[in-house]
Amino acid sequence: MKYRRRAVLGVFALTLSVSLTACPLPGQTPQGRVVRLAELEIDPARLQQYKTALRQEIDASIRVEPGVLTLYAVSVKKHPEQVRLFEMYANPDSYQAHLRSPHFLKYKKETAGMVKSLTLLETDPILLGSKFK
Amino acid sequence: MKYRRRAVLGVFALTLSVSLTACPLPGQTPQGRVVRLAELEIDPARLQQYKTALRQEIDASIRVEPGVLTLYAVSVKKHPEQVRLFEMYANPDSYQAHLRSPHFLKYKKETAGMVKSLTLLETDPILLGSKFK
Repeated sequence: MKYRRRAVLGVFALTLSVSLTACPLPGQTPQGRVVRLAELEIDPARLQQYKTALRQEIDASIRVEPGVLTLYAVSVKKHPEQVRLFEMYANPDSYQAHLRSPHFLKYKKETAGMVKSLTLLETDPILLGSKFK
Repeated sequence: MKYRRRAVLGVFALTLSVSLTACPLPGQTPQGRVVRLAELEIDPARLQQYKTALRQEIDASIRVEPGVLTLYAVSVKKHPEQVRLFEMYANPDSYQAHLRSPHFLKYKKETAGMVKSLTLLETDPILLGSKFK
């Protein structure tokens, strides 16, 4: 009986420990994260095509790349051709790997003629406050 | 022996199930989220004071307000006085509640003389891709 209880408790503790590691609680911003902002102006005539390509790229990056933490894409209200991206990577290596990934290269090629201007801003995090971190 | 194995497996499955519920997997962007971007220029002479006030405000918002999902604050590399915020709220009510919260009002009052310019951008999400969602 004692052995059985210990086994049950052991599995419970191990599973909980693995789960908490996979889903960190709120707290300080982890070191080494890379945050990049992108400000884009899209050709209004090709906006829907652009959004489709962007959604595919984001979906693949989040699914396939362990170090791509967020790719938030929004458009400015009343100016849907103005697109903003907030990109967060686990570390510089993850960021570089993303730039070489097949889905990112495909997106760049597909959307080259749709993007009228692109401003990239490299940043230093002040505080990355999040419920999800 | 059969009973013991079933008990162990049962606890494992239950714990994993609770953990997965607490830490949602990537997928579609939930409806109703509000994303606001802020672009600020801070008086360079008061930058450290500003960052301290901003960190306190972010920390309190994430801890106290259930509907404040992310408050990401970064500065532009080589232009630390240029600050960008990426703010995500669960819904419009959470956003309005945040604007009335004591810690936000305190931050606004404290930093009024430090902020040289402020541009707020209301946005429409295209896709909020995240590992954490």
